[in-house]
Amino acid sequence: MNGPDFQKTELIPVIAQDEASGTVLMLAYMNQTAYEETLRTGRVCYYSRSRQKLWRKGEESGNVQELKSLYFDCDADTLLVKVNQIGGAACHEGYQSCFFRRVDPASGNVTVEGERVFDPKVVYGKK
Amino acid sequence: MNGPDFQKTELIPVIAQDEASGTVLMLAYMNQTAYEETLRTGRVCYYSRSRQKLWRKGEESGNVQELKSLYFDCDADTLLVKVNQIGGAACHEGYQSCFFRRVDPASGNVTVEGERVFDPKVVYGKK
Repeated sequence: MNGPDFQKTELIPVIAQDEASGTVLMLAYMNQTAYEETLRTGRVCYYSRSRQKLWRKGEESGNVQELKSLYFDCDADTLLVKVNQIGGAACHEGYQSCFFRRVDPASGNVTVEGERVFDPKVVYGKK
Repeated sequence: MNGPDFQKTELIPVIAQDEASGTVLMLAYMNQTAYEETLRTGRVCYYSRSRQKLWRKGEESGNVQELKSLYFDCDADTLLVKVNQIGGAACHEGYQSCFFRRVDPASGNVTVEGERVFDPKVVYGKK
């Protein structure tokens, strides 16, 4: 296998992990164009399913993801990118990780883990 | 938000991360039934897209995943489970992580990172 198989599925899920801390930051998707741009530029580019176009992570907030290493899985249908997250936060809600809501299995209660690194209103303006 | 939104999408991608080392082990999917079973039993249960049925990870190999904590993301459409991976390997090819193939961005060359923890032929028999 030479890389992810975009013949199998046009959009491939991509796990972004902070290289330094090991924190899982987010999950997004790439098409082949986004994948090739990521390899070429060293900055992570996704494909936005909602906007249906390339999504250069951080293009608005400045919080780009510098690619440190890239892996694909045994089925060639998922990617793992290890990144340096500029700004310290990957989530548009201002948290380091998009996975800041934890479920307690016994009670079903949800708690927030982690603190806001930035205020989304300031970074993205009033939208 | 109280948890992942299975109304939005029937199958939700789930990132499994080794709790102790922080290694990202694999990506699989859950439907609502698999999710509820995982919370109830404390063992990770996925939904196999290829076999179209519940997939109790490790049911054949014995390499079950003990649930340590569970998170959902800001869009409520992805899960992160932190687990204790029994047997030390999540990948059916015998590696700790399914993401054992690394792509070099400059050359496109693929190298294998990590060593086999088990021999798939022994664990799964001749199939």
